[in-house]
Amino acid sequence: MAAEHDPAGIKPSWGPSEVPTTALLTDHYELTMLRASLRGGTALRRSVFELFPRRLPPGRRYGVVAGVGRALRALRHFRFDEETIRFLIDRDVVDSETADWLADYRFAGSIWGYPEGEIYFPGSPLLVVDGTFAEGVLLETVLLSIYNHDSAIASAASRMTVTAGDRPCIEMGSRRTQELAAVGAARAAYIAGFQATSNLEAGRRYGVPTTGTAAHSFTLLHDTEEAAFAAQLAAMGEQTTLLVDTYDVFEAVRTGVRLTQGRLGAVRLDSGDLSLLAKQVRDLLDSLGATRTKIIVTSDLDEFTIAALSGAPVDGYGVGTALVTGSGHPTCGFVYKLVARATSADRDAELVSVAKKSTDKISVGGRKFALRRLDRAGVAEAEVIGIGRPPDGDENDRPLLKQLVDHGEIVGEEPLSAARERHFRSRAELPIEALKMSRGEPVIETRYLDHGEDAANPYRTGKGSRS
Amino acid sequence: MAAEHDPAGIKPSWGPSEVPTTALLTDHYELTMLRASLRGGTALRRSVFELFPRRLPPGRRYGVVAGVGRALRALRHFRFDEETIRFLIDRDVVDSETADWLADYRFAGSIWGYPEGEIYFPGSPLLVVDGTFAEGVLLETVLLSIYNHDSAIASAASRMTVTAGDRPCIEMGSRRTQELAAVGAARAAYIAGFQATSNLEAGRRYGVPTTGTAAHSFTLLHDTEEAAFAAQLAAMGEQTTLLVDTYDVFEAVRTGVRLTQGRLGAVRLDSGDLSLLAKQVRDLLDSLGATRTKIIVTSDLDEFTIAALSGAPVDGYGVGTALVTGSGHPTCGFVYKLVARATSADRDAELVSVAKKSTDKISVGGRKFALRRLDRAGVAEAEVIGIGRPPDGDENDRPLLKQLVDHGEIVGEEPLSAARERHFRSRAELPIEALKMSRGEPVIETRYLDHGEDAANPYRTGKGSRS
Repeated sequence: MAAEHDPAGIKPSWGPSEVPTTALLTDHYELTMLRASLRGGTALRRSVFELFPRRLPPGRRYGVVAGVGRALRALRHFRFDEETIRFLIDRDVVDSETADWLADYRFAGSIWGYPEGEIYFPGSPLLVVDGTFAEGVLLETVLLSIYNHDSAIASAASRMTVTAGDRPCIEMGSRRTQELAAVGAARAAYIAGFQATSNLEAGRRYGVPTTGTAAHSFTLLHDTEEAAFAAQLAAMGEQTTLLVDTYDVFEAVRTGVRLTQGRLGAVRLDSGDLSLLAKQVRDLLDSLGATRTKIIVTSDLDEFTIAALSGAPVDGYGVGTALVTGSGHPTCGFVYKLVARATSADRDAELVSVAKKSTDKISVGGRKFALRRLDRAGVAEAEVIGIGRPPDGDENDRPLLKQLVDHGEIVGEEPLSAARERHFRSRAELPIEALKMSRGEPVIETRYLDHGEDAANPYRTGKGSRS
Repeated sequence: MAAEHDPAGIKPSWGPSEVPTTALLTDHYELTMLRASLRGGTALRRSVFELFPRRLPPGRRYGVVAGVGRALRALRHFRFDEETIRFLIDRDVVDSETADWLADYRFAGSIWGYPEGEIYFPGSPLLVVDGTFAEGVLLETVLLSIYNHDSAIASAASRMTVTAGDRPCIEMGSRRTQELAAVGAARAAYIAGFQATSNLEAGRRYGVPTTGTAAHSFTLLHDTEEAAFAAQLAAMGEQTTLLVDTYDVFEAVRTGVRLTQGRLGAVRLDSGDLSLLAKQVRDLLDSLGATRTKIIVTSDLDEFTIAALSGAPVDGYGVGTALVTGSGHPTCGFVYKLVARATSADRDAELVSVAKKSTDKISVGGRKFALRRLDRAGVAEAEVIGIGRPPDGDENDRPLLKQLVDHGEIVGEEPLSAARERHFRSRAELPIEALKMSRGEPVIETRYLDHGEDAANPYRTGKGSRS
């Protein structure tokens, strides 16, 4: 059935744990608006929607864009197959006219966006969706869900990898978030500099390196800790990581070193005063000649505890809960707003800027363009947002919007490594204060440039403010 | 391929947006432990794993179990197909012996658990998984992911529906959480008393009622607000809900009433001082004769703002971000621990209790049983947990563990309505203080009864404490 609606050139199959259709990862009202606008003759007005943050989470100095690749994949699978349409009709979400329209639905507009791994600031136009109202309105929820989640994880992850410096961070939070959110979280963390994940599906689906050795249950399964370690070493080799805090840490370390003649790969500490314990364990390992055995720490780490452990002899961090819950900010609060629309459904109808006027929810109307203004040394100075046309930049300035979809054709896919490398480059441009863990303001300001053109001027829509 | 491993009687197909296999929604180390235990000859020791909360989130008075039905469904689809096994071998996660074992994997043990919608407290043994070590260890992450997420949402949702009383709560948070977590969140919220969701996939997959009408973009699409309202009314009828805060709320209300001759279903307010605005809008509606038109409010609501609006003339609450992020507690912190295991792989080997000894991470060894102790008036007094055998109860006490899986056969599935009704019943048993929104301690205490049997006594495992 899915194959019927798949355009030529798009594989009808999907990988394990992916979804046959993403079309219902959508709020009811999107279909209702479609129905009403089709009935009213406004559905095919050209419309520009924008996905953007009104602000950063309190105290955060920058944010990280993630979810772009997943969003493009969701767009590819956004199709209304027969079963989906039947459900919508049965529930009276849509009428038969709307159902006919949905059966042929394929997003045929264009999308520009900040590429994955890029840094963002308040007001950054992360996605600009240009198509008909009907096309664009249906994508609101699925795009927001992906961006709000993945960017929240990447933003937290970036702070952790900054703080960890050269020491690797490993993502281990799958168990503390929804089972498929976990896969997206592992991917987002990797973009923001994590080296590996515990999540196997993220390994299969996205090629993220996976890692892991043993839990306390493995030690407890055996009659003695030594028997457990011996079994693990026999199966995994001496380079494995032994979990040493089930009973007595120092006894466990001695056992591990003895069983490997000092060639043990690593030990993992998962409880207690990690800073003190790491020091004691390092001393013990060194005294036993196991100078190359590494120490990995886990146990409710976040960017702050990672910072506190910077002076301890730790070789790697396993991060779980704090990562997958965005370290206090599990969602970004991105919104998806209509910012411009045509005055009629004619192809060459005038495009006018629109925005809800509100005292507590700021939206700036008009199609946006953006660049990162850099000083002569290549350090970021401002997020410059042009309304209606691109802002003027010099050779140091970096345009931020990249075309992701061109008249329905997805053109913005890239390997995950590209997003990861972009993140490192983009983060390296930030002023040094960006990397502080303390609460702060966005590290560069956002400047709106209004070129005063009628079609793009949010101040001329002529609508009164809400009282 | 999936069909090969599907036992008779289980449909090889899956619904849209479900996953062909859940087997890799798993941490790498589970496979590594399997590999090492198969190699070491301990994999087939009978083992009892327990999923439980060490504590409630700070300030919370009770928690709500959700995810049971989803977990059973995940278990049904937990199969290692050829592609999955190939990935594991290619990445050297498993060796060929382990791969052979995985190809035949089907959980053949038994599982007991708190049924869905039930209330829980610190230490409640939410799942008791009894099988071989190999069988049980593989389920750790996927079970924790589902329970930690869904129960976090249900726990927050229950506080909101308690506070809202007879006024309906509608789940609208899909856009603020990962796109498939959103579907689970809508389901969990429904269990905890929400009346509907905006999420269409939750409607299709779980039968949760869905609702929604229009966003600001719909009004902005049209040349005038009146044109937008007229289009919506034409498509949806007079019982629809008009969003009235795009420009001037009072003007919009007047327009909506005029277009429907006072028969408008409802208006929605999404910004501003909702309490004041609701009062003003109610007065206006009444003065225009639209006495039956309802007022729905949305805009960053949580249990506290719902409480603050209790005196305002509001007819329903739409809740988004706070719900899907667990209102400050996006994960429950449930853990999955080995609590008892056999001394050998023989079928009748003795079962011994085990637990990691730690100062900062409490685990109690031994197979658990649980009942809710009720006083003569039927009010909950304590969570009584028996170690090794069921605690003695009288006729008022309510056993909490229900068999979910019987030697591999899933027996615990039930309609969502059963979980929802159970939640209402169970919540009604709690002491009245449970329903306060203020921070508090768990509303009843947890009592462990240790029957002193060797096989179940966590204090006799003979292992020293970690220093």
